[in-house]
Amino acid sequence: MLSEFDLIKQYFKRSGPNQARPARAALGIGDDCALLAPSPGMQMAISSDMLVEDRHFFAGADARMLGHKCLAVNLSDLAAMGARPVAFTLALALPAANPAWLGEFAAGLFALADLHGCELIGGDTTKGPLNICITIFGELAPGHALRRDAAIAGDDLWISGTLGDARLALAGYRKEYALDDAAQLMAGTRMHMPAPRVALGLALAGARLAHAAIDISDGLVGDLRHILAASNLGASLNVDALPAGPVLAAQPQALRRQFCAAGGDDYELCFTAAPEQREAILAAAIASGTAVTRVGTIVAAPGLRLVDAHGCALDLQLDGFDHFASA
Amino acid sequence: MLSEFDLIKQYFKRSGPNQARPARAALGIGDDCALLAPSPGMQMAISSDMLVEDRHFFAGADARMLGHKCLAVNLSDLAAMGARPVAFTLALALPAANPAWLGEFAAGLFALADLHGCELIGGDTTKGPLNICITIFGELAPGHALRRDAAIAGDDLWISGTLGDARLALAGYRKEYALDDAAQLMAGTRMHMPAPRVALGLALAGARLAHAAIDISDGLVGDLRHILAASNLGASLNVDALPAGPVLAAQPQALRRQFCAAGGDDYELCFTAAPEQREAILAAAIASGTAVTRVGTIVAAPGLRLVDAHGCALDLQLDGFDHFASA
Repeated sequence: MLSEFDLIKQYFKRSGPNQARPARAALGIGDDCALLAPSPGMQMAISSDMLVEDRHFFAGADARMLGHKCLAVNLSDLAAMGARPVAFTLALALPAANPAWLGEFAAGLFALADLHGCELIGGDTTKGPLNICITIFGELAPGHALRRDAAIAGDDLWISGTLGDARLALAGYRKEYALDDAAQLMAGTRMHMPAPRVALGLALAGARLAHAAIDISDGLVGDLRHILAASNLGASLNVDALPAGPVLAAQPQALRRQFCAAGGDDYELCFTAAPEQREAILAAAIASGTAVTRVGTIVAAPGLRLVDAHGCALDLQLDGFDHFASA
Repeated sequence: MLSEFDLIKQYFKRSGPNQARPARAALGIGDDCALLAPSPGMQMAISSDMLVEDRHFFAGADARMLGHKCLAVNLSDLAAMGARPVAFTLALALPAANPAWLGEFAAGLFALADLHGCELIGGDTTKGPLNICITIFGELAPGHALRRDAAIAGDDLWISGTLGDARLALAGYRKEYALDDAAQLMAGTRMHMPAPRVALGLALAGARLAHAAIDISDGLVGDLRHILAASNLGASLNVDALPAGPVLAAQPQALRRQFCAAGGDDYELCFTAAPEQREAILAAAIASGTAVTRVGTIVAAPGLRLVDAHGCALDLQLDGFDHFASA
């Protein structure tokens, strides 16, 4: 059986040519603390996400995809703030130290970390029910953060990428909805391997193109309500303008509406911006390789109004995911 | 049942007069990321610890003491680096949102946080087997960190406070060893409510009195070996000079030696310093209200030699705690 210290050394401590970029930390894994010096004048953006077996992923989930996903959800929080990824810590509770699982998990984790130049600088390992907690650090210039409370009445409402395929995959796994194998595989990849919109977030914040932003983890409607509450504003959302994922796009309208508006696990950005920025936002989207779609308007009157393609009110029973509401 | 968002708002989001000091973060709880700007020119010291039920604490543990302890173990990592506490994130997996438990947990957590001027700036809550992951942020001047690899041959070896009472309490709870009620209560307080040696760590690092330091969480011998390995040195440790906790001090010698040298859960500092600093270290100890004891010497020859009060070699079977070795 691997010891705790061997485990860290073997799977999570990297040095020399294996490292994709020069180390950002003044001191990394192996002491009581890591030491990190942000670039002069920059703020640190910090976020923590905890993923639990049977809650955020299935028992027996593919370890490589899990390594990707647990970092992706944290990178997505940096993207939603417009921060550049710098480093992260990993705390891991494992039922046992399984070398094959650890090798795959680390491979998935570091592949995504290297893609974003984000360095593992410390953490903790312990025995316990499988639980993965990553705290991520980014940096951004003061005043550039895409805050939830920064929407302005009259702003356009935008969505990156596509929505709903992750929720569709879940419905398929749960046998709530029948999908053929190819569709299940394609939608499942979207659920297991989300692509955090880091480049788009950086472009929106760096050039101050957007006002407010949030990443869509619990479902668009629920997450959008956080922006509206923080900004003390309302919105009109055209549900039929929401960009469905390629698998969901081939399903019936009622399912499309439901899973686009409140699917969850999308890790797309929902952001608001002044109408004068439309051209610049489309250019930023092309430059960052991320599609964006205009799906509504921020208004002064509180509340979220869902409308169809004709502007008629829709009475959908939608809500975001709440970890304790279903308890 | 409380929702996830109500839970955070009610128990963990504080503002205005409840807050013991002005907020350090540019943006705290409630957005995708917190924003933190370190003082100009300072490094951030970062550490993560994950505490798991039945592993780090008993099922049904007192929630207030648990709130204290899970922050204390992280503050102890900052102390061992000589960093000043600034802020922390809290990720919490809970089997259910129990208001009484949450109120007590938050009370214990914030009492210690306020004592050290350390602000909760973000985190995550989810449903799952009880798991508490805190990531803590401190700051210190570049070059001042008390690193594990900084010991020098000829250094004195020092220990703060007292050792072994936490391990003795565990032996009592496990019925491995009989303690009367008063002794069990007193030793148990030491196990449940460790006092992180933040003031001492700051004094040692700020005035550059010490070279290497580590906090004793897994047992002195095991933790000291991390300093020796990182510094590529050895040590002679006088086991009979180790300062036993007041309850352990009244127990037989064999138990005193065992639990002082390898008890675990002590959260004292083990540090090395040049002999010329003895007076200054004793003065810093008095100024920070923390006893310190000289217990050995760092030597050039690798390996850890345990000796008794007469300098004779002791052949004790001791080792630090490893989370996976006992699996």
